[in-house]
Amino acid sequence: MTLNKTQIAEIDQLRAQQAATRRATVPALEEILYTALPVLDHGFVRVIDYMGDDAAITQAARVSYGKGTKKLNEDKALIFYLLRHWHTTPFEMCEIKYHVKLPIFIARQWIRHRTANVNEYSARYSIMDREFYLPAAEQLGVQSTNNRQGRAAVLSPDEAAKVQKILREDAERCYQHYMEMMNLQGSDGGEDTEPQILDPNRSGLARELARMNLNLNFYTQWYWKTDLHNLMHFCRLRADAHAQYEIQAYARVLLDTMQRWVPATFEAFQQYREGAINLSKSGLDVLQRMLRGEQVSEQSSKMGKREWREFCQSMGLNDNGQIVSPQNKVA
Amino acid sequence: MTLNKTQIAEIDQLRAQQAATRRATVPALEEILYTALPVLDHGFVRVIDYMGDDAAITQAARVSYGKGTKKLNEDKALIFYLLRHWHTTPFEMCEIKYHVKLPIFIARQWIRHRTANVNEYSARYSIMDREFYLPAAEQLGVQSTNNRQGRAAVLSPDEAAKVQKILREDAERCYQHYMEMMNLQGSDGGEDTEPQILDPNRSGLARELARMNLNLNFYTQWYWKTDLHNLMHFCRLRADAHAQYEIQAYARVLLDTMQRWVPATFEAFQQYREGAINLSKSGLDVLQRMLRGEQVSEQSSKMGKREWREFCQSMGLNDNGQIVSPQNKVA
Amino acid sequence: MTLNKTQIAEIDQLRAQQAATRRATVPALEEILYTALPVLDHGFVRVIDYMGDDAAITQAARVSYGKGTKKLNEDKALIFYLLRHWHTTPFEMCEIKYHVKLPIFIARQWIRHRTANVNEYSARYSIMDREFYLPAAEQLGVQSTNNRQGRAAVLSPDEAAKVQKILREDAERCYQHYMEMMNLQGSDGGEDTEPQILDPNRSGLARELARMNLNLNFYTQWYWKTDLHNLMHFCRLRADAHAQYEIQAYARVLLDTMQRWVPATFEAFQQYREGAINLSKSGLDVLQRMLRGEQVSEQSSKMGKREWREFCQSMGLNDNGQIVSPQNKVA
Amino acid sequence: MTLNKTQIAEIDQLRAQQAATRRATVPALEEILYTALPVLDHGFVRVIDYMGDDAAITQAARVSYGKGTKKLNEDKALIFYLLRHWHTTPFEMCEIKYHVKLPIFIARQWIRHRTANVNEYSARYSIMDREFYLPAAEQLGVQSTNNRQGRAAVLSPDEAAKVQKILREDAERCYQHYMEMMNLQGSDGGEDTEPQILDPNRSGLARELARMNLNLNFYTQWYWKTDLHNLMHFCRLRADAHAQYEIQAYARVLLDTMQRWVPATFEAFQQYREGAINLSKSGLDVLQRMLRGEQVSEQSSKMGKREWREFCQSMGLNDNGQIVSPQNKVA
Repeated sequence: MTLNKTQIAEIDQLRAQQAATRRATVPALEEILYTALPVLDHGFVRVIDYMGDDAAITQAARVSYGKGTKKLNEDKALIFYLLRHWHTTPFEMCEIKYHVKLPIFIARQWIRHRTANVNEYSARYSIMDREFYLPAAEQLGVQSTNNRQGRAAVLSPDEAAKVQKILREDAERCYQHYMEMMNLQGSDGGEDTEPQILDPNRSGLARELARMNLNLNFYTQWYWKTDLHNLMHFCRLRADAHAQYEIQAYARVLLDTMQRWVPATFEAFQQYREGAINLSKSGLDVLQRMLRGEQVSEQSSKMGKREWREFCQSMGLNDNGQIVSPQNKVA
Repeated sequence: MTLNKTQIAEIDQLRAQQAATRRATVPALEEILYTALPVLDHGFVRVIDYMGDDAAITQAARVSYGKGTKKLNEDKALIFYLLRHWHTTPFEMCEIKYHVKLPIFIARQWIRHRTANVNEYSARYSIMDREFYLPAAEQLGVQSTNNRQGRAAVLSPDEAAKVQKILREDAERCYQHYMEMMNLQGSDGGEDTEPQILDPNRSGLARELARMNLNLNFYTQWYWKTDLHNLMHFCRLRADAHAQYEIQAYARVLLDTMQRWVPATFEAFQQYREGAINLSKSGLDVLQRMLRGEQVSEQSSKMGKREWREFCQSMGLNDNGQIVSPQNKVA
Repeated sequence: MTLNKTQIAEIDQLRAQQAATRRATVPALEEILYTALPVLDHGFVRVIDYMGDDAAITQAARVSYGKGTKKLNEDKALIFYLLRHWHTTPFEMCEIKYHVKLPIFIARQWIRHRTANVNEYSARYSIMDREFYLPAAEQLGVQSTNNRQGRAAVLSPDEAAKVQKILREDAERCYQHYMEMMNLQGSDGGEDTEPQILDPNRSGLARELARMNLNLNFYTQWYWKTDLHNLMHFCRLRADAHAQYEIQAYARVLLDTMQRWVPATFEAFQQYREGAINLSKSGLDVLQRMLRGEQVSEQSSKMGKREWREFCQSMGLNDNGQIVSPQNKVA
Repeated sequence: MTLNKTQIAEIDQLRAQQAATRRATVPALEEILYTALPVLDHGFVRVIDYMGDDAAITQAARVSYGKGTKKLNEDKALIFYLLRHWHTTPFEMCEIKYHVKLPIFIARQWIRHRTANVNEYSARYSIMDREFYLPAAEQLGVQSTNNRQGRAAVLSPDEAAKVQKILREDAERCYQHYMEMMNLQGSDGGEDTEPQILDPNRSGLARELARMNLNLNFYTQWYWKTDLHNLMHFCRLRADAHAQYEIQAYARVLLDTMQRWVPATFEAFQQYREGAINLSKSGLDVLQRMLRGEQVSEQSSKMGKREWREFCQSMGLNDNGQIVSPQNKVA
């Protein structure tokens, strides 16, 4: 993560301000407000603002005149009840706003979540920073053969070094050309001065065109605002082990901020979403047969091969449908 | 507006709390936070929470690290520019949450605005208050003959009194029966005690069924949360003179809260939305001909009769397409 | 369900028309197109239009140039895979449009599903039909004591008769007054003539006001259009046994139309949504312990009382956490 | 536009199929169904499916049992009325589905329209085509100085040639490296065979990672489905002269398909959206003063410099606020 001096000063200035408010306030989240939480090599997540807390959920669920809280444990029980029964609207009553810096190819996955508000840094209007994502060697996974959209083991150190070299050189060259086409002097990034004209005798290509030469690993940034229900939905999908590693890295930081913000909801989220599984009609049938003592196999499960494997894995069973003892359990 | 003692105490308690925050804070809105602003005979609007202020709009538009403000007048100019050019996303970065009490037939219009979050008081779960909307005599408009969804002049005092009598008696009878079917004693409203069982020897109809006997003028209530862009969209349509009077009454109170919250945006809203008109291609053509000195009539305008009338009215012209002098101007 | 002669003739006329199209076409759905499928005492569901079929889902998932189908069983396997893994966007590529007649209190539940397009019959503009929902005696459930938003056993025949009398008389009286206030002659419903002026010497109250005297069991109607993903979401929540009976009745008819339209998706829906359960982290832990032979009780489950009961019920266990033999199984 | 033989055959096969349907059908749109309409150098727009026609709009607005049409001219008048008065929901009752091939940097603008359904070709799962956008020399605009997000005059032929060379070489090199990293043989594009392994002794980088080396001018493709209201909103913003040229090119093709599909709505769209302007409160005031014969200048207009210039331009006035005679009129 690279913040220049101006940016650091601006953040510090924001953090120094305090005002009195009658609104629901969460000290644990205030503590990190505006701070840049690092993700990947140059990215970050900053909490810019928030509305509501755990109590605001029960307050809305009860359509209260007052705070909506009864005893603390009753409130928590209600939050657990609401999440367990897929009552989504009370969680929509809390809202959070982030400033995120992220590689473009990740931004393209992220934006698929439509129920959110976004203001992205405009490359039609402004000049992009000279910052691109270069995966660490331990992230350079081989194409998986049994999952067409996944990674298997990592590349050999030699292969990894070659890949990193290609990615770095192509990004650097493309950025250099990006600046040249706009008739601007390339900078080495990080500083906060305006780029200088390269050649006063020629004109520069429009920014909205020059940007097309940048690679998909260049960083963009945006303000992203969503409600708690949609934040949980995002994190359930994107912090999941099947999501691409790079977006997982962001989702995990979002979850950290959620834990500070609404700790009771976070706990319920772990219970009913993150650690939960969807058990299909066939899966339910298989389990009931197993509980009655029947030994069920892939053949007798009426599931397909892949579904059976997924089922066994999610239940902590081996591929023969037998319970794995805790010490041997799949992580 | 009828708040019982418990409700008043709950609101007072909320208003008495103060906390320190680093978030953008708007003193003029804090002033009325949680307070019930009366609308119609029993309704209200309460601001429960808010996120952001005028500066948050420019901050998001610039994807700033800091507050995003430059000089105050530059910020205001940017807000005006954004609204003029229909840049909607920066206005989505501000959010507001209301608690609203409103007649059901108005709630049914209101809910058509889908880009908002809603938690409504549940008549499956709880017992509805004995409160219904009874229009004042001066609101009892006659069915308009030239606008099938409008009101013309008001009813005669006699007719109005008859209508009010019908509405009152039917609502009272229906509520009485609502309670009886649930085997509950009717109350005269306003108090805050739980309703008592009517007859210990019989069982009561389920609430989710009994409610169907209530009239559409009974009051419901909900928490309603939306972003500033959608709030403006709501107000543009619902504070408009063509909207039904009863929802206008709510939209005008929402506009008052918006003025406290984001005064610069409010001013821009008046300029580019509330006081603005959409000029059609034909309208533009007519105006240009008029500016060249041509006298344009309905016939030569190429507009339909109704469109021509609307055009003239919006431009302050009489039905012959002639400018009305300011003193004679249609309000 | 009451359709008057004009309406029947209009539907017949629509059904008589045929055109050639290159679009994906589903004969089983064409068969019932435009037909009114009865629901409750006066309601209906009519399929007005549709876009896509099962193959359109795989076509979109593969971003195909052609039909997107490979072998039929590969297509079906892909649909099952997509639904199992919560890939929602391919199902959004199919769209369906309904005309629904339904009681207002059900319309108010229904409209909470925001991701849909709605055109409702306007009571500002038009006169409402004299049709209200009168529940059959076997639907008049007593208020449940352990579930505040549910019904328990039905009322006694005597009580039921009293409730029906109240509902009928109040609705009839309120409709009579509705017409009188508008200065219109009441009709006995069903016919298709325009209502007549009652008294030529007085003016009628505006429709937008008079409607407020109607009860929540009066029927309204709307065009409702949604995509297949959101249709499934609606049906999962509203065809569920915990939903209010009256909306269940509609959801079940929607499911029937879905089965005609996209049979493979319907089958996957039954497998992964309708017949599936969400197993919490604790539930998963309890099951794994049970599979290892441990006898788990409410106390040792770490679940709350209510959650334990729900868990046992969904797994087909009795309240002691013991498997119920198939013949004793809870329905 | 490059379609390979398989793709052409698939499209031909689709076009050869015909079925009978009771649904609303539009021959003019059927005519081009599935056909690839070329945009830019390699892009296209294909209409894949549609629901509804002009009559479906009035049918929904009237919540009809039948076709909803009265006389043809009444229907058209209603459509004009609805669009003029911003009644959006009837237009949401028509739906259209496209297959679009477009450069990634344009896809990133496009996706900002959230009220649509999207299935994008997955570069996690599949290999991207070797096709990138190379702007024609006459599109290589210089960065505008008075509009930070616009283009001014085009580059000199020499400069343009240099820019094209950079863009071509960087894209070719990056694609070459993209394939190499995945251990695949580069192809010259266009053919429809699966890429071959480059070196059987090494493993290839996962697709989800390799893709990050591609430039933003590479083509992606997606299925995109939206309703007519949102299609018009998209086209109003993106076919506008201020939109980036490349997205305008797509929006204009979408408008062509809309004209075939719903000709009456298209005409209303031109009248009330495309050819219309939003006249601010100040603009309205200025016009009324002008109509009374007053000569209004920037100073006396109470508008800012930029707003005044925009106002004059939209009204066909010169910068002194004087009407431009038709022959001198700004295009």
